[in-house]
Amino acid sequence: MSQKLVKEITAMEEDFAQWYTDVVKKAELVDYTSVKGCMAIKPAGYAIWENIQTELDRRFKDTGVENVYMPMFIPESLLQKEKDHVEGFAPEVAWVTHGGLEPLQERLCVRPTSETLFCDFYAKDIQSHRDLPKLYNQWCSVVRWEKTTRPFLRSREFLWQEGHTAHATAEEAQERTIQMLNLYGDFCEEVLAIPVLRGKKTDKEKFAGAEATYTIESLMHDGKALQSGTSHNFGDGFAKAFDIQYTDKENKLQYVHQTSWGFTTRMVGAIIMVHGDNSGLVLPPRIAPTQVMIIPIQQKKAGVLEKADEIKEALKGFRVKVDDSDKSPGWKFSEQEMRGIPLRIEIGPKDIEKNQAVIVRRDTREKHIVTMDEIPAKITELTEMMQNDMLERARTHREEHTFEAKNFEEFKQIVDKKPGFVKAMWCGDVACEEKIKEETTATSRCIPFDEEKISDVCVCCGKPAKSMVYWGKAY
Amino acid sequence: MSQKLVKEITAMEEDFAQWYTDVVKKAELVDYTSVKGCMAIKPAGYAIWENIQTELDRRFKDTGVENVYMPMFIPESLLQKEKDHVEGFAPEVAWVTHGGLEPLQERLCVRPTSETLFCDFYAKDIQSHRDLPKLYNQWCSVVRWEKTTRPFLRSREFLWQEGHTAHATAEEAQERTIQMLNLYGDFCEEVLAIPVLRGKKTDKEKFAGAEATYTIESLMHDGKALQSGTSHNFGDGFAKAFDIQYTDKENKLQYVHQTSWGFTTRMVGAIIMVHGDNSGLVLPPRIAPTQVMIIPIQQKKAGVLEKADEIKEALKGFRVKVDDSDKSPGWKFSEQEMRGIPLRIEIGPKDIEKNQAVIVRRDTREKHIVTMDEIPAKITELTEMMQNDMLERARTHREEHTFEAKNFEEFKQIVDKKPGFVKAMWCGDVACEEKIKEETTATSRCIPFDEEKISDVCVCCGKPAKSMVYWGKAY
Repeated sequence: MSQKLVKEITAMEEDFAQWYTDVVKKAELVDYTSVKGCMAIKPAGYAIWENIQTELDRRFKDTGVENVYMPMFIPESLLQKEKDHVEGFAPEVAWVTHGGLEPLQERLCVRPTSETLFCDFYAKDIQSHRDLPKLYNQWCSVVRWEKTTRPFLRSREFLWQEGHTAHATAEEAQERTIQMLNLYGDFCEEVLAIPVLRGKKTDKEKFAGAEATYTIESLMHDGKALQSGTSHNFGDGFAKAFDIQYTDKENKLQYVHQTSWGFTTRMVGAIIMVHGDNSGLVLPPRIAPTQVMIIPIQQKKAGVLEKADEIKEALKGFRVKVDDSDKSPGWKFSEQEMRGIPLRIEIGPKDIEKNQAVIVRRDTREKHIVTMDEIPAKITELTEMMQNDMLERARTHREEHTFEAKNFEEFKQIVDKKPGFVKAMWCGDVACEEKIKEETTATSRCIPFDEEKISDVCVCCGKPAKSMVYWGKAY
Repeated sequence: MSQKLVKEITAMEEDFAQWYTDVVKKAELVDYTSVKGCMAIKPAGYAIWENIQTELDRRFKDTGVENVYMPMFIPESLLQKEKDHVEGFAPEVAWVTHGGLEPLQERLCVRPTSETLFCDFYAKDIQSHRDLPKLYNQWCSVVRWEKTTRPFLRSREFLWQEGHTAHATAEEAQERTIQMLNLYGDFCEEVLAIPVLRGKKTDKEKFAGAEATYTIESLMHDGKALQSGTSHNFGDGFAKAFDIQYTDKENKLQYVHQTSWGFTTRMVGAIIMVHGDNSGLVLPPRIAPTQVMIIPIQQKKAGVLEKADEIKEALKGFRVKVDDSDKSPGWKFSEQEMRGIPLRIEIGPKDIEKNQAVIVRRDTREKHIVTMDEIPAKITELTEMMQNDMLERARTHREEHTFEAKNFEEFKQIVDKKPGFVKAMWCGDVACEEKIKEETTATSRCIPFDEEKISDVCVCCGKPAKSMVYWGKAY
């Protein structure tokens, strides 16, 4: 019986996509709904997102960010005010055409992102240099009418936060853009145990309406890249389209400089695909809604459940549960593993006799037998160790799946045979970027902040190279 | 200059509606947007909602509730499954008819409430008695296409939480319905300092599709009632419409019994209208985003700002800010009052000389001169006292504006002349309820849990009375 839950997962080596789908279902993170392309996020999945929200929100506020809420609808005329922006988003928005029984005079789209709403607001709200900077953020859901969808990774509606700031100078806006990108990067590494590349998007891949887009990119277990968070510098482009001006200290009218930055529920998908294994989910301790599951053995015997509760009491400060359901211990082990709970404590009559308990790490399955009073210290040690080991394993995996290509033949062979990132030089011409995508399906992921020199010439056309680019197949 | 902010508020005795609008604007809680009927919630307003969320969410979780997220769209066919429900909501929903450039095969409404989505989900998710109870909640926004709107009180989109539970028995569902109503009631009284009536709605006023709706009702400063939170018992009505069945311990199929309950951003409006005065907002200390504003006097003099920061340091555990902007102290006082910050500490060179500071309560304007080391204890005492006094003042106001009517003439005179609640007996006939509404504009607010006997006969028709009802004009 304890094997049953596990057997129902496809092995990741066999079919990674099916493994992913099995895990999200079996770990009870999401379910499909009657609304095509939209998911129901179940308690186990939503609790991960809540922990992401709490920690990110705290980090935002530490930098002076304040939360607000803008409407979910955007009038068509407002969406059209910035030319590049509307071109980027109009083909994939949902349109509201009727309110109650009446047709609307102007149709409204459900926000795919809220730059236009924030700009409309800032145009009224910002008058003087004293009103700057504005550092606003909102937590909400957005809608993009995707054709093919997958839970967490790409759905028609998803949850995110979107920060929108306005500054007096271009320098300040650039500084904030990079600050928020690094905040995302640090959060991924410190809390989600996901190592990220940090860099700039090429013009082809930048956000519709942005002057520059910065990105953090992570590598999934199957060697595909995932864009994990983006931060955009808008310069004064939106400010000019929406007429957002302030009077400076010399009483002159100036346009503001703006940024936006977002982080979404797709990162729950990243946690699954970076850390999961063939027994299910593996959650980094810092983000796990339940960090320790205590599983009593022969729980009907006198004293066992009491001892389990006693251990739970001793672990104040950790997120701990006791599984006292009437399932078999083997089944409970298998469920705890499927759900990715980082540590399990097994406690039965024989352990109690010996004044000990067994602690098992989810990631390595390493067993530790410790005396009762050693438990809190051991749990502290193991959560720290597991968190660090998970980050290091993911980093090693990425390093082992990062390759260099000096010419197009090499590039094509790597993309074809070796899943992962390819580092290669680029001339800066979009034609080469498009040719690479067309012939290999790999896209430019980012021009990293710490560029290396792989060769002197563009990997595609052989002309002098301008930048080093990380390339890869991506979700 | 310090008078300027204040002068721009209309006195509440002069025009209560205009006073309300002035306060929400001047206290920077919300702003109007280009989206008709939808508001932008600004940092000062959103921070109040965040505090409401944090405290309610904690109380929900203490009763076993888990958070989830359902799609924001409802296919038309799903909305239509429960007859009363669709009749209640269809006239006021927004319809999405196009996704990207394509018309949809079936139109989707933007959720006005999510019973149908939860039911659709539960129908798949619940199989056995082991799956029960389900105690789910979500924080989200909903849309109702209102014709006339007012910030917080009635807008086309508003924020709320909606809890949806499924139980094995009717008794359990009823127990949960009342439990959540009391949770709302206790929260309003303990945290928002708003006293509430607790009771049942008449059939005419109950939620579309519910077997019974329970409500908490509060009284605004102008004597109008505000429905402040509702909890519905659905019986097995939705379960039958959506075929939500479980196998019980005897392996027989049974329908589940369901509840739902919601609390919204309109309560930010209630805080304004219960506690505000002609200088602006007055926030109960427990919900105030900033509880203490320290205002330095002659802040450019040596040591003043340092002392202000020192006081702030000494008040760890409270939410404290120092206003060190370059405005005049008078202007700062006026702003702190407008924004409803419960306590202000004034500290200037003369105070420093005397080793003292001045503390001023926002609600009573009472001044306290205390020595430096007495400040933390005094702030603790004053926040507690102010919280309690605000609740008691609101309770006294409600008692002074609650009247009894024994016959229809008396009833009409009271509604006409004395704003507030009217307690009066009712025969239980909807015809009387409608007549009362038509002739007086007062509606039935609730049949309280603690019914009193005002007389033997219906205040409208004179036939034998069944219940005592609180009546009132309402928002």
